[in-house]
Amino acid sequence: MITVNEYFDGKVKSFVINSSEGKKTVGVMEPGEYEFDTDTKEIMTVVEGNLSVYFAEDDEWEEFEKGASFDVPAKSKLKVKVEQDTAYICEYE
Amino acid sequence: MITVNEYFDGKVKSFVINSSEGKKTVGVMEPGEYEFDTDTKEIMTVVEGNLSVYFAEDDEWEEFEKGASFDVPAKSKLKVKVEQDTAYICEYE
Repeated sequence: MITVNEYFDGKVKSFVINSSEGKKTVGVMEPGEYEFDTDTKEIMTVVEGNLSVYFAEDDEWEEFEKGASFDVPAKSKLKVKVEQDTAYICEYE
Repeated sequence: MITVNEYFDGKVKSFVINSSEGKKTVGVMEPGEYEFDTDTKEIMTVVEGNLSVYFAEDDEWEEFEKGASFDVPAKSKLKVKVEQDTAYICEYE
């Protein structure tokens, strides 16, 4: 059975899938600003829409469009901003 | 609120999102064989895993890997086979 996760009162939802490379999540975000805590290292890929990601070390927001990927270190905070419904895939290391 | 659709006893689930190009669905399928009925024309893109699609006119299965897209005519049947958890995005025309 495909697990559905919900965060931020259902404004972010994700499915958990098992791939040959391990667990991945396929999620969607409604417009808003969200902060996630990572456990392991994550590789996030935008598959629809547009994601702004805050990088604390540069104090800068960077835009990631459909097809773009970025890494999120383990045990860190991921702050994102979404202005349209956006879908992503997340891999865990 | 992001709508979650469930088909085939929850072996296929999808989220409905609104993009600037209209409604899209972001879905996942567990291993199995499924037949869907289309209403409008659909453009399906595999974003994770692997999808076998049956084309009745050729009586042939064709494989679509991550990144590949195919069209499904309106008012038709879409027969697919999945051997690993697979994620897709569907656009409607």
